[in-house]
Amino acid sequence: MLKEAIYHRPKNNFAYAYDDDTLHIMLQTKKDDLTSVSLIHGDPYHWEKEQWITETLPMEKTGSSELNDYWKAAIKPPYRRLRYGFEVSDGAETSIYTERGFYDEAPGDTADYFAFPFLNPADVFTAPEWVRQTTWYQIFPERYGNGDPSLNPEGTLAWGSADPTPTNFFGGDFQGVIDHLDHLVELGINGIYFTPIFKAYSNHKYDTIDYMEIDPQFGDKETFRKLVRACHERGIKVMLDAVFNHSGYYFPPFQDVLAKEQASKYRDWFHLRELPIKTEPVPNYDTFAFVHTMPKLNTEHPEVKRYLLDVARYWIKEFDIDGWRLDVANEIDHAFWREFRRVVKSAKPDAYILGEIWHDSMPWLQGDQFDAVMNYPFTNGAVEFFAKDTMKAGEFADTITKVLHMYPDNVNEVAFNLLDSHDTPRILTLAGEEKARVKLLYLFQLSFIGTPCIYYGDEIGMSGGQDPGCRECMIWDEEEQDRNLFSFVQQLLNYRGAVPAFGNDGSFRFLETNDDTGVIVYEKFNEKNRLIFVVNNGDQQQTFTLDALADKQAKTLFTGENISFNHEAKVTLPAFGFQIFQLNH
Amino acid sequence: MLKEAIYHRPKNNFAYAYDDDTLHIMLQTKKDDLTSVSLIHGDPYHWEKEQWITETLPMEKTGSSELNDYWKAAIKPPYRRLRYGFEVSDGAETSIYTERGFYDEAPGDTADYFAFPFLNPADVFTAPEWVRQTTWYQIFPERYGNGDPSLNPEGTLAWGSADPTPTNFFGGDFQGVIDHLDHLVELGINGIYFTPIFKAYSNHKYDTIDYMEIDPQFGDKETFRKLVRACHERGIKVMLDAVFNHSGYYFPPFQDVLAKEQASKYRDWFHLRELPIKTEPVPNYDTFAFVHTMPKLNTEHPEVKRYLLDVARYWIKEFDIDGWRLDVANEIDHAFWREFRRVVKSAKPDAYILGEIWHDSMPWLQGDQFDAVMNYPFTNGAVEFFAKDTMKAGEFADTITKVLHMYPDNVNEVAFNLLDSHDTPRILTLAGEEKARVKLLYLFQLSFIGTPCIYYGDEIGMSGGQDPGCRECMIWDEEEQDRNLFSFVQQLLNYRGAVPAFGNDGSFRFLETNDDTGVIVYEKFNEKNRLIFVVNNGDQQQTFTLDALADKQAKTLFTGENISFNHEAKVTLPAFGFQIFQLNH
Repeated sequence: MLKEAIYHRPKNNFAYAYDDDTLHIMLQTKKDDLTSVSLIHGDPYHWEKEQWITETLPMEKTGSSELNDYWKAAIKPPYRRLRYGFEVSDGAETSIYTERGFYDEAPGDTADYFAFPFLNPADVFTAPEWVRQTTWYQIFPERYGNGDPSLNPEGTLAWGSADPTPTNFFGGDFQGVIDHLDHLVELGINGIYFTPIFKAYSNHKYDTIDYMEIDPQFGDKETFRKLVRACHERGIKVMLDAVFNHSGYYFPPFQDVLAKEQASKYRDWFHLRELPIKTEPVPNYDTFAFVHTMPKLNTEHPEVKRYLLDVARYWIKEFDIDGWRLDVANEIDHAFWREFRRVVKSAKPDAYILGEIWHDSMPWLQGDQFDAVMNYPFTNGAVEFFAKDTMKAGEFADTITKVLHMYPDNVNEVAFNLLDSHDTPRILTLAGEEKARVKLLYLFQLSFIGTPCIYYGDEIGMSGGQDPGCRECMIWDEEEQDRNLFSFVQQLLNYRGAVPAFGNDGSFRFLETNDDTGVIVYEKFNEKNRLIFVVNNGDQQQTFTLDALADKQAKTLFTGENISFNHEAKVTLPAFGFQIFQLNH
Repeated sequence: MLKEAIYHRPKNNFAYAYDDDTLHIMLQTKKDDLTSVSLIHGDPYHWEKEQWITETLPMEKTGSSELNDYWKAAIKPPYRRLRYGFEVSDGAETSIYTERGFYDEAPGDTADYFAFPFLNPADVFTAPEWVRQTTWYQIFPERYGNGDPSLNPEGTLAWGSADPTPTNFFGGDFQGVIDHLDHLVELGINGIYFTPIFKAYSNHKYDTIDYMEIDPQFGDKETFRKLVRACHERGIKVMLDAVFNHSGYYFPPFQDVLAKEQASKYRDWFHLRELPIKTEPVPNYDTFAFVHTMPKLNTEHPEVKRYLLDVARYWIKEFDIDGWRLDVANEIDHAFWREFRRVVKSAKPDAYILGEIWHDSMPWLQGDQFDAVMNYPFTNGAVEFFAKDTMKAGEFADTITKVLHMYPDNVNEVAFNLLDSHDTPRILTLAGEEKARVKLLYLFQLSFIGTPCIYYGDEIGMSGGQDPGCRECMIWDEEEQDRNLFSFVQQLLNYRGAVPAFGNDGSFRFLETNDDTGVIVYEKFNEKNRLIFVVNNGDQQQTFTLDALADKQAKTLFTGENISFNHEAKVTLPAFGFQIFQLNH
């Protein structure tokens, strides 16, 4: 038994409250090392005849990654207190793993065990209930629709008449979004994430000048109010982009500092390392990256805090927006985000807070800061396997299993699962323009745990490289849209809402992977329903047998066939084909 | 190489800000598996010719426990941002460990690496500066000194005339503490931790009736004010005990609930599972343990929060106390403690917050909640090795090394290191009444990293078993005090303050341990100074050679000898003897 590879530490993904009654406990071990793990547990104050009373609960191996197995158990401690240890066995040897190390026999003193001292509801990670049922659609407003040409900035080009560049304009605006809401309703999404809409000179608006004003190229506050209302009438939530890590160069407080330097009353709004201000060879003040036009805001300064928190509150209270996406969220202090959460949730208790973090984000997902992060570890796995073909089936399963075990279940259920964005090439481009691969990407994304996000235009087959290539004008001529792809995504979204276990009410598990053929088999299941997804991510037809289907009756989604499998359960899939089998367990 | 046993996850003890400029990075590996570890690191935005620019820093093996080695490095990222990975080698094989797993060669994409996104000062764990220099003394007020017999509760017994029972009284009071402050000044402590002083019927006062009133047996508010002033005049800080997890049975809001049940306006101040209230077989409302007279307070309720936070503020603002010790701290929600910290630190920025937690306490020590916890993992190791002789030298070193690596350094430097308390038997009793063992306990405690606490009376050789045995009246007759022990502790405290590297300005490291003889050798050191502690925790005289002293000039503390060691460096220690060698590196 490899004791050195056995890891557990309470909180985070290892011991957490799933809801107000339930704790989830997880143990990480060396892959294929242990044959069984049980949870020894009890209330720390439940003693009889000077003996601590414990129970033993078998733990389930819920997945494996390249190096590790993961074991989980759910438990409802009657008095909300728990002390626990693990009985680990490799078949030959059994040992008891506790906070103080390994014992041959279960120690009698509760002090030796791991502690989950008390399940306090205030500490339970809780995202808004509606988020679990949401599919997002990301809109880059300058490129979605030009509904009011009178707002066009100087030099605006005709819609779609040129490739996007870092500086050109096509006149996208709020009216353009309103005009096309039917497209979104038809597709079946129910949340829009808008990249920034506040006053800024660039076409992407990440260089904010005024956080309290709409950029005039998009419309005015009345148009925005109309947009939010139009969305809400259609059951669509609205999320805005909060660029609080840094301001734009023309943000008046920064201009004041440039002008008055030491004498500026905004001097401490930024992180000036020395004066006078210099920008070469690198800025002598903190910036986003080394971009001198994006000075980092001092979010520890009381006035800056008040200003930004007012902004957060204002757009919720005045315009009824439903969430904030936080740009460069991990470079701002945790203390700021805790205050931000209090302000946002007191303005609207079911507002959603989504952080942009590309890395492991556990420290922000403990219930006191964000409701979710952009799930780039998911993105990386999906893109490398389905789109780029740079990852084998087994490694893909390892990656996804690791993602599922790096966060608590209630965190995963609202993870913001994107395939691409305004910051990456589009999936069709990543997939070498192969539509069949894009379909498999959508199949996987839309049947996975979490809240998926579709980047505008991907659903009708737009392509585009790294920024600015991925920011072209939305194509509205149906002749030029890939309506087949649109219908496919529409159907998946329909299944996600209507078929039990397809969406967030189903657990996820890989059943098989084949590195040679590229075939993966996974299931989504809950107590009543079971869906088996068989996916051929390879360019050859494959025929194989599937134990999971042996002697089963199944109905296929999409094709709607009823199939009685015999003992052999043979399945044939064309290149890049798939089947979804619906079983009654 | 055992990759499965290599563990790192940013934040907590693995990657943290030591101060506003410095990050500490730690890696855990299988014991004796790797021969070297280096940190590959860079600013994520520092690229030249499309290549990410990294540097490599060797990491130091700072300790080993039974199963693991720990490797650490300190680094000051120039722009406060860091991406990093580990180059791990076992002599034969070299691999690069990153957030995405192991690579044969260092990947070129920063996204693959671990991230410490930004070192924001607001998030740096920061305890009050004075705490690092503090030695605490714990007083159980009912048993320290009876300075005002007019306050004696009914039935008060003559001082020290009987064994303590759960219910008897000896009339200890504030005047009794004031009368004996010289004892504390003479001993050399500079902080007092008082167990509860608020109105309550019991002798221990953990069953609070009124958090805003002093228990009349101790004096009134004026006497308390006088006590705090008298302490401050002598450079002694004052910490009170906040029993916020539960109230006493006679707390008026609980009495109101008992009387009016459903109709009580305090109904939601507690956790009632059903009505009418019952106490058998177990209370049908949440309590401390299953003690029906200690109803758990609902610290999520706005009124309860306001009340308790007012209490926290009141005793600081009105009486200038310096800290709060939090009873049963880990059963209260984190959300409450975060508000508590804001209130306390805004009332007095350098107030100290100490949580009572017997288990791994990392979740409370991230800068947003406590400054320290009662370091029971330290206590367990010290007591089992020195007092009870139930732990071998090697296991002791493992335990202490594990404690030192389970928290960040800045957390360890203010850990509240106790040997015993009102909740445990006294150390002399734990040590089988062997004074020599008690001296070694003090030697170790008072030369260790952290802030030590001495339980009243231990320093003059009082003994006593588990509560209530450990709560006898302080012995004030010098004839009955062990003045030799007192002088010994006094001398250690003097060294802790005066000898460089003895206290918190010295790092700690074990040099040798011997399971057969019980001898341990450890050093405290900083850039300029080095102290080598050689301790014989066995009942036989031992003679041995010590490489660390070979060919060195050393001065001994206590005995004040100057010794020139030859190449053999032979040391002889009597049973339970020790030597402290002071070297100039």
